[in-house]
Amino acid sequence: MKFRVSSELSYNIKAPTSFIFNIQVAQTKAQTILEEKIITTPADLPVDEFSISSKNARFLRMHVPRTDNFRIQYTATVNLTLKPVQIRKTAVLKIEQISEEALPFLYPSRYCQSDKLYNFAEVEFGHIKSTYGKVKAICDWIYENVSYVCGSTNANTSCLDTIFQRQGVCRDFSHLGIALCRALTIPARYFAGYANQLNPPDFHACFEAYIDGRWIFFDATRMIPQHGLIKIAHGHDAADTSFASIYGEADPIDVIVNCEALDKKAFDTYTKKLKLVSYE
Amino acid sequence: MKFRVSSELSYNIKAPTSFIFNIQVAQTKAQTILEEKIITTPADLPVDEFSISSKNARFLRMHVPRTDNFRIQYTATVNLTLKPVQIRKTAVLKIEQISEEALPFLYPSRYCQSDKLYNFAEVEFGHIKSTYGKVKAICDWIYENVSYVCGSTNANTSCLDTIFQRQGVCRDFSHLGIALCRALTIPARYFAGYANQLNPPDFHACFEAYIDGRWIFFDATRMIPQHGLIKIAHGHDAADTSFASIYGEADPIDVIVNCEALDKKAFDTYTKKLKLVSYE
Amino acid sequence: MKFRVSSELSYNIKAPTSFIFNIQVAQTKAQTILEEKIITTPADLPVDEFSISSKNARFLRMHVPRTDNFRIQYTATVNLTLKPVQIRKTAVLKIEQISEEALPFLYPSRYCQSDKLYNFAEVEFGHIKSTYGKVKAICDWIYENVSYVCGSTNANTSCLDTIFQRQGVCRDFSHLGIALCRALTIPARYFAGYANQLNPPDFHACFEAYIDGRWIFFDATRMIPQHGLIKIAHGHDAADTSFASIYGEADPIDVIVNCEALDKKAFDTYTKKLKLVSYE
Amino acid sequence: MKFRVSSELSYNIKAPTSFIFNIQVAQTKAQTILEEKIITTPADLPVDEFSISSKNARFLRMHVPRTDNFRIQYTATVNLTLKPVQIRKTAVLKIEQISEEALPFLYPSRYCQSDKLYNFAEVEFGHIKSTYGKVKAICDWIYENVSYVCGSTNANTSCLDTIFQRQGVCRDFSHLGIALCRALTIPARYFAGYANQLNPPDFHACFEAYIDGRWIFFDATRMIPQHGLIKIAHGHDAADTSFASIYGEADPIDVIVNCEALDKKAFDTYTKKLKLVSYE
Repeated sequence: MKFRVSSELSYNIKAPTSFIFNIQVAQTKAQTILEEKIITTPADLPVDEFSISSKNARFLRMHVPRTDNFRIQYTATVNLTLKPVQIRKTAVLKIEQISEEALPFLYPSRYCQSDKLYNFAEVEFGHIKSTYGKVKAICDWIYENVSYVCGSTNANTSCLDTIFQRQGVCRDFSHLGIALCRALTIPARYFAGYANQLNPPDFHACFEAYIDGRWIFFDATRMIPQHGLIKIAHGHDAADTSFASIYGEADPIDVIVNCEALDKKAFDTYTKKLKLVSYE
Repeated sequence: MKFRVSSELSYNIKAPTSFIFNIQVAQTKAQTILEEKIITTPADLPVDEFSISSKNARFLRMHVPRTDNFRIQYTATVNLTLKPVQIRKTAVLKIEQISEEALPFLYPSRYCQSDKLYNFAEVEFGHIKSTYGKVKAICDWIYENVSYVCGSTNANTSCLDTIFQRQGVCRDFSHLGIALCRALTIPARYFAGYANQLNPPDFHACFEAYIDGRWIFFDATRMIPQHGLIKIAHGHDAADTSFASIYGEADPIDVIVNCEALDKKAFDTYTKKLKLVSYE
Repeated sequence: MKFRVSSELSYNIKAPTSFIFNIQVAQTKAQTILEEKIITTPADLPVDEFSISSKNARFLRMHVPRTDNFRIQYTATVNLTLKPVQIRKTAVLKIEQISEEALPFLYPSRYCQSDKLYNFAEVEFGHIKSTYGKVKAICDWIYENVSYVCGSTNANTSCLDTIFQRQGVCRDFSHLGIALCRALTIPARYFAGYANQLNPPDFHACFEAYIDGRWIFFDATRMIPQHGLIKIAHGHDAADTSFASIYGEADPIDVIVNCEALDKKAFDTYTKKLKLVSYE
Repeated sequence: MKFRVSSELSYNIKAPTSFIFNIQVAQTKAQTILEEKIITTPADLPVDEFSISSKNARFLRMHVPRTDNFRIQYTATVNLTLKPVQIRKTAVLKIEQISEEALPFLYPSRYCQSDKLYNFAEVEFGHIKSTYGKVKAICDWIYENVSYVCGSTNANTSCLDTIFQRQGVCRDFSHLGIALCRALTIPARYFAGYANQLNPPDFHACFEAYIDGRWIFFDATRMIPQHGLIKIAHGHDAADTSFASIYGEADPIDVIVNCEALDKKAFDTYTKKLKLVSYE
């Protein structure tokens, strides 16, 4: 299944500013990048490209002089070959079975203070035996109890706020899902990506939970078919998967994001078949 | 129905210290004080007695010199004549009907940040029409979702913590009840009192909600028959109904509280009859 | 010294909505209202007028039907006769000397969590002996360490946020001042008012601290000469002195506030003379 | 310089419990482990040993059956060869110069919410030019403004609490140091270790800041000579460098920690010479 993704970020640079962009598609087993392109305006600014493997992420580091309209455009064509995942839905995760790579995702992080949610998670989900059942119940709980309201939250909002404010956006839905998993000793990580026909178009956030030895994809917003995403990066939470980190003085002008399946008909058929997927 | 109440607080005073005690039984229509006594050790310390009517509360202000064992003992015999309250359980409160005296109890306070709970309250209780139905549902929700765990919280714990920690003591149950009422535009206030045969014996906290023009008593802990309490004071929350405010250097040694119906048999009969009560 | 004050609030009422306005000038010894007028559009809506003495405040309660443009206009001419206050600047407040009316303003409130600031207050201001010296040092600290930045905070911002964010508006400056006073056992209360030639024009917030038996006026923003205000109300904090409490569905359209001395020349002369003032 | 370190943790295991211990000395260029030993009681429990390189940390994972007294003892002799670090104290860090390995330590984490401290950091330290100067000023500020008070904080305490509570333990001093560095775009990470003659003996926490391309060691508590530590691990904050993560039901009985230089005289001489050190 091929997807065409693009993003364009523009800024008014009021003083020389450094950027770290994290907008490129991740290179994983499931994702093959057929072509991609970066264009900046002004052109010919030096770009330092690097990747951090623990986040599956690729970065662009740039230093931009004063200018009214700095612009970075990214386009890619990606082949996504997700296969349905076979996990034992009744499996119960034991701490001994968690891979070393997954263990760091058990700990609380900036926006996912799982250490404050042990009782909440136990009261709501403790009676469910299987790991898969718990994560599914978490997603259902979030979907049923939290309203998706554009603009209702900001960069300070953590999963604790979401619990009592009961509204948020994809970022908040993901943070809460992650925190509740971790509170139940299930490793979970933030998933940032491009989402097929997201409305309104924007970067999307979901999460991955570690079940029966695999990283399984979940989206508590139910906005996107679960294989309609292209991964950019995963991380502990939004704090370390920001699409643009800005060091200097830059006012954002616009963010334009797009993602669509090249063969829409095939995508729709595909949608009905796949159930659980892993982006690994 | 007569009750005998007593409390004894003791402190190690390491430097001259001022106290404001709020341990005396309130004088209300429902409560007649038949006799009461204050004893301090050392004796003959000057005591400034005063009351603040908006809290229905009586205070003792004292300045205590350095001493190993300062002790204040309060005993009282109280006649409580609660009558069952007739309110229209289907009544829907309008802001125009709230008395001026009740209006201040609509606003958020230190431990009851109702301004952060509008969505939560709306999602959980918004569909219930009547004011009484809402308050009852709030109490049921708290009882079912929050565990009563001695020592699980402290003086910093607010109703927001209780929502995600899902455990607490009577003080936390009351704060959450109050905050959810206020979030639904129902005036609510903290009720501090002596509780009949509370186990372990201690001061007890409940709350009062303003329904159909009356202040109705509620106890989300379900630990005490709802007319087995003697009111000390009401207030916005625990911040302004503390039984002892201490200004200086004093280590608490002990708090001993007791309350019992003088005619236990009559009390038990009474218990089965009364439903909704008001301490006004 | 005569002042002319006015305010006009307008709303788009999307469903029948109740309001409690607190925009009228308080009637105090220092403030004589020479004339005042309330005009609403649509006209002839019933208005319930009442006052709450513990806040020195006057309220207008209204129920407004659906309408595109509900508007309430208040104008008043006020004679302000502040006299310089004689307090002993070296006096040290003792808990025994605090009047009963002032005691409630010792306790923490929604936005002024003084119970969390004991160490902070002690570290920064504990070495200062006199009550006046402490309050003055608190105002200086706030002025020097917190930046006044329009729009930097919102209705959720408490004094704790202001301590680490180090920016805010008049409301935040006041909350922090109040909380630090209370942490040092100095009663303090929020002061809402009209401010002479405030730029940009808006309601203004300051605070009053209880020193040597008097409520002394302080403004840590240093934006207004300290007798260029007309008091609307005082209270524990912004939570209970809101100029408009809205129960229903109303989008604010505009807030227009104005205040000016009728004899500007006299005002300027006056400014140079007065030092400490009390609005009581 | 040789050190002898040891730790012994004991628990009452009330239901089968999994542990992840992080108590072994890290293997770094500066630290050579001459000998080490792990003893558990009961003996012959299977131990899964693994390391996570991004934390420089070694872990022991165990599953322990019900028992009154489970005990794990670790002892090691370590040769520490810290050399004085030559950094340019006037260097100003640019985002372009930060190594990819250091970049993740720029982001906010569970206890180090640097995103809320931009203004605070700017107001207090923004005027200082060099990176080293900033970090040094941060340490001085913490030492001068925060009191070291045993038992004053708990596992919920974050750097924001420390700013307004102004007291804490080594963990809190470190979190605040880290957060302030990150708020100024200086990568910083938590350093957990054994500390020579710490009083009372316990695990110690410090931090490392990224200056002029090196990770430089800092201890804002000033309790330990800066080369009297043996590193166990570094991480984003205490959330991911816990010495014992417990999954099950285990009550801690005791924690006994010890660390001492084998040649005390040499250590004392050494202390006076070394200034800036790096544990890498």
